Amino acid sequence: MVAKNSYNVAVLGATGAVGRRILEQLAQSTIPFDSVKALASAHSAGQKVPFQDGELVVEEANEHSFDDVDIVLASAGGSTSKALAPAAVKAGAVVVDNSSYWRMNDQVPLVVPEVNADALKDHQGIIANPNCSTTQLVMALNPVFQQFGLEQVIISTYQAASGAGKAAMDEVLAESQARLLGEDMGELAHVLPVKGDKKHFPLAFNLLPQIDVFEEEGYTHEEYKMIHETKKIILGDKNAKQIKVTGTAVRVPVMIGHGESVYIDTGDEAVTTDQIRAAIASVDNVVIQDDPATQTYPQPLLAEGKRETFVGRIRPDLENPGAFHLWIVSDNLLKGAAWNTVEIAQELVKMDLVRVPADSAFTK
Amino acid sequence: MVAKNSYNVAVLGATGAVGRRILEQLAQSTIPFDSVKALASAHSAGQKVPFQDGELVVEEANEHSFDDVDIVLASAGGSTSKALAPAAVKAGAVVVDNSSYWRMNDQVPLVVPEVNADALKDHQGIIANPNCSTTQLVMALNPVFQQFGLEQVIISTYQAASGAGKAAMDEVLAESQARLLGEDMGELAHVLPVKGDKKHFPLAFNLLPQIDVFEEEGYTHEEYKMIHETKKIILGDKNAKQIKVTGTAVRVPVMIGHGESVYIDTGDEAVTTDQIRAAIASVDNVVIQDDPATQTYPQPLLAEGKRETFVGRIRPDLENPGAFHLWIVSDNLLKGAAWNTVEIAQELVKMDLVRVPADSAFTK
Repeated sequence: MVAKNSYNVAVLGATGAVGRRILEQLAQSTIPFDSVKALASAHSAGQKVPFQDGELVVEEANEHSFDDVDIVLASAGGSTSKALAPAAVKAGAVVVDNSSYWRMNDQVPLVVPEVNADALKDHQGIIANPNCSTTQLVMALNPVFQQFGLEQVIISTYQAASGAGKAAMDEVLAESQARLLGEDMGELAHVLPVKGDKKHFPLAFNLLPQIDVFEEEGYTHEEYKMIHETKKIILGDKNAKQIKVTGTAVRVPVMIGHGESVYIDTGDEAVTTDQIRAAIASVDNVVIQDDPATQTYPQPLLAEGKRETFVGRIRPDLENPGAFHLWIVSDNLLKGAAWNTVEIAQELVKMDLVRVPADSAFTK
Repeated sequence: MVAKNSYNVAVLGATGAVGRRILEQLAQSTIPFDSVKALASAHSAGQKVPFQDGELVVEEANEHSFDDVDIVLASAGGSTSKALAPAAVKAGAVVVDNSSYWRMNDQVPLVVPEVNADALKDHQGIIANPNCSTTQLVMALNPVFQQFGLEQVIISTYQAASGAGKAAMDEVLAESQARLLGEDMGELAHVLPVKGDKKHFPLAFNLLPQIDVFEEEGYTHEEYKMIHETKKIILGDKNAKQIKVTGTAVRVPVMIGHGESVYIDTGDEAVTTDQIRAAIASVDNVVIQDDPATQTYPQPLLAEGKRETFVGRIRPDLENPGAFHLWIVSDNLLKGAAWNTVEIAQELVKMDLVRVPADSAFTK
């Protein structure tokens, strides 16, 4: 099979906050595309979305949408991805999916290119993009694990409203305005913390320690995603015991940019803070912002619109040698979603892996 | 000496955000007062502050202000407390001080009444009120330590703007308004993260991982306060090794109410989540808000104006038996400042300890 020189690309879920950014990131990527098709649900068909200097007319997505497509970049929610990703693969397209549906499937690589691009070699037509809070986390954790080992990771997240979509952002802005006018915010909460859950609370000037629904043992689905996806990406196995991972996910009144306060225990008492900082700095697209003397540290407002992952406040636990604190910030809509999705496709092109293997589990 | 039936009280720093709340909490306390005097710096003298149904005229504080005073409730900053607290003690008054100046002094008890009221018995005229982030933390940690032990505590804070004073709150509101109007926020930052530091950044829709100035090893002064004060309150010794304490302090765009994501390792693999919850619930003025099925968990907006400390999201580390997560929220201006100060004085009255011992270190 001869490598193609250019590709037909479809963006599934093109009208959403992440879908629009996928189109933007695709235009700025090194992926050589012949054509780009914008797909969404029936009720969005006919809408126009910006692409390069023009617009694309959105088409309704169905199982016949992929006949002439090489690469599908999907951000349309779990049930759509469940239904359409196998159809796309059967039609010969490779799918990079941003929903949570395929992430834990053993036949689906879960990829952050700077961390585990090699996992792409085994793809069977579907590649999953990790949860936003996981992606920026493994950018910093992986080099530490590779060089010094990691016994335990404890994460507290500070997650932006945009992680819950555009409606959540609008809700926080409306609540903020009400609060500034001295009006009641409670009536305005319809989406957060979780659209489909029973109760809704204002996030403006507040903190909501619930992201996604509650599951066993009092953990939220978001917290389990972070735990299992981190292990799958770094170790290749979500149940692996080599690294203990645990944490708490909290929604904060920020629009864009997740923060993470991360405690890592390498178990190696000889490791220094400078070695940890150098290991993390060696990762492509990680920017160290870490200078107390000049008050330099990652902030969501500084990360907005950037593809990089920013790491600072790197310092030792003064009573537990080998353990350290990190403060990680990244744009959850870019590295946490749209950019990582496009970056995976760009990597597939570079590695000449834009093809569905004949024995794919998804074509049977 | 016969116990007095009522007391003359002075509030030092009466015009500040905390000072005004001290007056409010004093009026609602069980302290039997004969007279209440409002004291502040020269430039605030003559101002009026609300008290009960009327007002108090603020007097300039100096070393002669305390001649007829039994109890001084001080929230006037470290340098004022350094200068005036010993003068008040020499005049025969007992001082409950909310600044950080006296907290680590070996001759000054650092007290949260629900945790270590017994430490009041050794007071020499000055009692210190802990830092806001410490107070709500030890309310939950102490019963766990007493019943099951504590090997390590790792804290990530989510601290409200009001912890930096009224000017910081006003700044965040002005920045929020600018952002809603699509204007630049950068020009409005003059106070946060730290008034006296070199750079200022917007906090609205942002996160600032700096509270107070940076010190050795990349930790902020706020982080060291949390570490040392927690040990002094629970163990009586800021350098005690029995409990390892470490953490990261982050300012969030909330007006009132600090959140804390806390990881505790008891070192006892047999301890259950129900036992941890019951231990914390047994503390006076702790309210457990912890029911995933009804989305019940502590939130700053629900804690505002309340004296209690709220604890939820209590759950086990699934890979490290004996370790647990907690999410703690309290009104940083009340339990974190004004109310704990008044509560200490109320406890001194109850324990009949409103007197300066003859051999006080502060009268020499």
